[in-house]
Amino acid sequence: MAQAEDTDDTDFSFRLITTDGKARLGEISLPRGRIRTPAFMPVGTAGTVKGIWLEDVRAAGADIILGNTYHLMLRPSAERIHELFGSLHAFMRWDGPILTDSGGFQVMSLSSLRKVTEEGVHFRSHLDGSAHFLSPERAMEIQALLDSDIRMQLDEVVALPASIEAQAAAMRRSLRWAARCREAFGDTPGRAVFGIVQGGVEPHLREESVRGLTDIGFHGYAIGGLAVGEGQELMLKFTEFTADLLPADQPRYLMGVGTPEDILEAVARGVDMFDCVMPTRAGRHGQAFTRFGKLNLRNARFRDDTRPLDPGNPHPALGQYSRAYIHHLVKAGELLGQMILSLANVAYYQQLMAGIREAIAQGRFEEFREKTKRQWREGLPD
Amino acid sequence: MAQAEDTDDTDFSFRLITTDGKARLGEISLPRGRIRTPAFMPVGTAGTVKGIWLEDVRAAGADIILGNTYHLMLRPSAERIHELFGSLHAFMRWDGPILTDSGGFQVMSLSSLRKVTEEGVHFRSHLDGSAHFLSPERAMEIQALLDSDIRMQLDEVVALPASIEAQAAAMRRSLRWAARCREAFGDTPGRAVFGIVQGGVEPHLREESVRGLTDIGFHGYAIGGLAVGEGQELMLKFTEFTADLLPADQPRYLMGVGTPEDILEAVARGVDMFDCVMPTRAGRHGQAFTRFGKLNLRNARFRDDTRPLDPGNPHPALGQYSRAYIHHLVKAGELLGQMILSLANVAYYQQLMAGIREAIAQGRFEEFREKTKRQWREGLPD
Repeated sequence: MAQAEDTDDTDFSFRLITTDGKARLGEISLPRGRIRTPAFMPVGTAGTVKGIWLEDVRAAGADIILGNTYHLMLRPSAERIHELFGSLHAFMRWDGPILTDSGGFQVMSLSSLRKVTEEGVHFRSHLDGSAHFLSPERAMEIQALLDSDIRMQLDEVVALPASIEAQAAAMRRSLRWAARCREAFGDTPGRAVFGIVQGGVEPHLREESVRGLTDIGFHGYAIGGLAVGEGQELMLKFTEFTADLLPADQPRYLMGVGTPEDILEAVARGVDMFDCVMPTRAGRHGQAFTRFGKLNLRNARFRDDTRPLDPGNPHPALGQYSRAYIHHLVKAGELLGQMILSLANVAYYQQLMAGIREAIAQGRFEEFREKTKRQWREGLPD
Repeated sequence: MAQAEDTDDTDFSFRLITTDGKARLGEISLPRGRIRTPAFMPVGTAGTVKGIWLEDVRAAGADIILGNTYHLMLRPSAERIHELFGSLHAFMRWDGPILTDSGGFQVMSLSSLRKVTEEGVHFRSHLDGSAHFLSPERAMEIQALLDSDIRMQLDEVVALPASIEAQAAAMRRSLRWAARCREAFGDTPGRAVFGIVQGGVEPHLREESVRGLTDIGFHGYAIGGLAVGEGQELMLKFTEFTADLLPADQPRYLMGVGTPEDILEAVARGVDMFDCVMPTRAGRHGQAFTRFGKLNLRNARFRDDTRPLDPGNPHPALGQYSRAYIHHLVKAGELLGQMILSLANVAYYQQLMAGIREAIAQGRFEEFREKTKRQWREGLPD
C-alpha cells in the first residue's frame, strides 16, 4: 500500500505538502506524471474532453483527466482500445495520468433495464439496447484494459429518495464490492485503486463505510453519493463529515463536483480532487465561468460588449475573444463558440485550482476564499 | 488601377512570378499581407472558419480567408461590426487579408421572397424573415464597413436551368451592376475590387462579359456562374475559355471551387484563387481529403485502422490522430471529430496549394499533377 512517505517514482504516492485550516496542498506521483492537489480533472467522457484539443487541456494546467468506463466499454470497447493501442492514453493521445470511474454511476443514470444482483449489474446500452454486465471484477478488468492510472471501485448507487434501509444495504453491498475490486486490482505496480465512501446523508452509514474501506485499504478514497440533488448545504456538510474521518495521508476525491463555489468550499473542508462535466457542458450551452462569476453569453446584454470574458487574463479563450464576438458565435450556433467557451471554462477551473494551491502554500487560503467569492458576487464593473 | 509592376506596399498589387504551361505562380500584395497564388481561401462564413481556431488556419498556411456578406449583414450586421470593432478582422481576430463576397449568391440560394429589379434585390432573411435590400452600392457599403481587403461586385445569379436569353439578360445586368460597384468603390487605397465574369456555358456571353468588365477595369476578375451543377467537364472547359480571355497581369478567381481535383485542373487552366466550403463542410460530416484520396471516416473499415489519415504527414490533424480514433469520434458525434477533420482538410488543401506553387516554380507542374492524381486514385496501400 502506497503511503505519504513513499517516494518511489515507479509507483503511486501521495505527499501532503502543507495544510491551511482543513485545506490541503499535496502532490500525487504516478509513473505517467504528477498531480498537484487540490486538482480538478476535466472529464474526457468518451475518449475526448468535449470540444477541446488535448494540447489545450494540458496547456490550461490540467495534470490529469477522467475517462468514463461506461461510455468506453460500449463504444469503442475496452478490448478494442487495449488490442489496438494498449491504453486509453495512446488511443486519445494524452500522455499524462487518467482516472477512470467504474461505470456504476452512468449505468444507473443512462442505461435501461437494469438488474442489480450481488454478482453485479445487468443492463442494456443506451446506444443500441445491447445487453451488458458489469461486476466488480469486470469493472476492474475494463479499467486495466484501458490501463488507467487511478481506478475506481464499482459501487452501488441508489436512486434517491431512498429509505435509510435501502441506503444502508447499498452501502454495505458497495463495501463487499470494494473488497472484490481491491482483490481484483491486486498488486498492479504504478497504478492505484480508490474506494468510494457511500452512506448518503446518514452519519453512522458514512462512518461504517469509511471503516470498511480503510480496513480493506486503498490508495485513496472518494466521497460518493453526494451532489445528487441533496442541496449544497447538505453536500458540504457530509463532505466535511466524511473528509474528517478519512486518513490524512491519502488523497480524497469528491466525485462529480461541481461549481467553482462547490469546489472552493469543499477544499476548505479537506478535499483534494474533483471532476465535473460542468465546465465543458456549460461551454457548449453558451455559459462561461470566470473570475467575475457565471456569464450567459446568449444574453443580449453581451451583444455590444467588446470586453473579453475576463479582461487582463493571459489565456486566449478568457482574455482575447470579445464577449460580442462570442455572443455572435453562440447565437449563430457556431462550433467555435462552443470551443472558445469550453476551453475558457476548463482554463478558468484550472486557474482557480492554481490560485487555491498558491493560497494554501502561502497560508492565506481564507483570504483567497473570501476574495474569490466576493469577486464572483460583485462581477466585473461596467 | 493596380498593375503587375505596381510594388507600392500600401496598395493592392499582383505580381506574376512565372508560368508553367497555363499554370501561374504569383503573389498578391495588400497592406494586411501577401497572398501566394495559386491560393485557396478557407471560408469563414459568419465570422468563423467553422470548427477551427484561426491560429490553426494560419498555421496550416492560409494567407487569406473569405467572409460572407449575406451572413454577416443579417447577423450581427456590418454596422455593428464596424461600430464596435472597425473591421471584420478585429471582430474575428484575423489580421491577414479577407476577401468578402457580395452576398448575391447566398441571397439566391438561401433567402426567400426575392424580388430582383434593376436597382437591386429585395429579399427576406432565412433566419427571421426580416426584409432586406441589396444593391450594388449597398453591397459595396457593407464590404467597406467590414473593411475587407478584396471586395466583390454584386452580380445577378440566375437559377439554372435558364434560357440563353435569361442568362444574357442576367450577365448584362451584372455588367451594369459591375459599373455601379466600381463607381461606389471609387479609389479606396489598399483595398481591391474584383469583377465577376458571367455568361453561363455560352462562349459569346462569356466574351461579352469579359469585354465589359475589362473596359470598366478591376483589380482582378472572378469566374462566376460555374460549379453550379453543369458538371466538371463543362466547368473546366469554360474556366479555361474564360481564363484565356482575361488579362495576364491580373489575378483570376474561380468562385466556389472545389474538390482538390477541380482545383488542380483549374490551376492547369490558368486560375489563381479558389474558395470553397468543401473542406470544412466535409470535415463536419466525417470526411477527410488526403494525399491518398477522400476517406469517409464513418466507414467501418476504419474501426481498427491505427494509421493516421496521412502517414508521415507533419501536420498534427493529418499525421497524428489514428483513423480508428477519428472513426470513434465521428460515430460518437463528438465535436473533436469535426474539429480534427475540418482542420485536417483545410491543412490538406493548403498543402496541395503549396505543392502546386512549388511545382510551378520548378517548372514541373505537369509531373506534379499526374503524380498527385495517381496518388488520389491509388490510395494508401494496406
